[in-house]
Amino acid sequence: MPVVNVKLVGKLSKEQKAEISKRFTKTLEDVAGKPPKYVYVVFDEVDRGNWAMAGTLFSDM
Amino acid sequence: MPVVNVKLVGKLSKEQKAEISKRFTKTLEDVAGKPPKYVYVVFDEVDRGNWAMAGTLFSDM
Amino acid sequence: MPVVNVKLVGKLSKEQKAEISKRFTKTLEDVAGKPPKYVYVVFDEVDRGNWAMAGTLFSDM
Amino acid sequence: MPVVNVKLVGKLSKEQKAEISKRFTKTLEDVAGKPPKYVYVVFDEVDRGNWAMAGTLFSDM
Amino acid sequence: MPVVNVKLVGKLSKEQKAEISKRFTKTLEDVAGKPPKYVYVVFDEVDRGNWAMAGTLFSDM
Amino acid sequence: MPVVNVKLVGKLSKEQKAEISKRFTKTLEDVAGKPPKYVYVVFDEVDRGNWAMAGTLFSDM
Repeated sequence: MPVVNVKLVGKLSKEQKAEISKRFTKTLEDVAGKPPKYVYVVFDEVDRGNWAMAGTLFSDM
Repeated sequence: MPVVNVKLVGKLSKEQKAEISKRFTKTLEDVAGKPPKYVYVVFDEVDRGNWAMAGTLFSDM
Repeated sequence: MPVVNVKLVGKLSKEQKAEISKRFTKTLEDVAGKPPKYVYVVFDEVDRGNWAMAGTLFSDM
Repeated sequence: MPVVNVKLVGKLSKEQKAEISKRFTKTLEDVAGKPPKYVYVVFDEVDRGNWAMAGTLFSDM
Repeated sequence: MPVVNVKLVGKLSKEQKAEISKRFTKTLEDVAGKPPKYVYVVFDEVDRGNWAMAGTLFSDM
Repeated sequence: MPVVNVKLVGKLSKEQKAEISKRFTKTLEDVAGKPPKYVYVVFDEVDRGNWAMAGTLFSDM
């Protein structure tokens, strides 16, 4: 039942998201014995105008 | 002051979201005595390409 | 695959959480056709010293 | 390393988000000594059809 | 109706949380016109053993 | 700047969390070119009485 949320600035390709999901799920199975069928991986791709670091939006850097 | 977040794959209709909000809010009032005016229900409709189960994106199933 | 997060100030009893989980899950089945076995309901009971409304912590009200 | 998530109904302008990010980051530095370079501020602008208060979606008010 | 979540490693004092809540709420009022009574600020103080940066838990640094 | 949140029922050992953090961070570097120093992995270990599946709390199964 783990729910993994990946929040990042910008976009990933479909292939990157597929590969990350596969590896994260395998990691949770190998390291913590979590059955893959209960592992959710959810991506949250945030626009550069909606994320600031050090007080400045990425879209302004 | 409860904040209820509903995260799911794909879309719900406007009518479904209205009905779910109504029932969730009533449940929190009936069961836990929470005043409706303080209950927020927020929907997060996630694209099938952004959610994986068992290591596979829904868009690849 | 809906994941419902309920965030609130203070504690609910075990019975309240059981009843809310049951009703939320049934609502998602009835209104949106979501199979109960894929519905997660997660409670996040926040301490009064960690939640502010109108700029004041609940523990200071 | 604080991650600040601001979730709200509707949209803010680019200027509003830039100013809020700047002030939030400065607040965390001034009040809690957090180095600005480790402060993330992330905005989540939710559609009026995806947020309910008191059991009614904002889009239905 | 903004909900602001502040997630950080370790603990803040009661006074720090009160002051941050006050300033964040005022910022949202001044910059975005949000009525204070609808602003929630929620703190999530994460244990050093539950947060990793650069692949290492803070408790191992 | 990816923030990875891992939410699960029950506890992991310190060693499991360290290993998962290491592998997740390496995956994001290898697959998506994310610099490790900007990758946060945060664990949220939820009590069995606070998570329901199929309408039943884990503590009642």
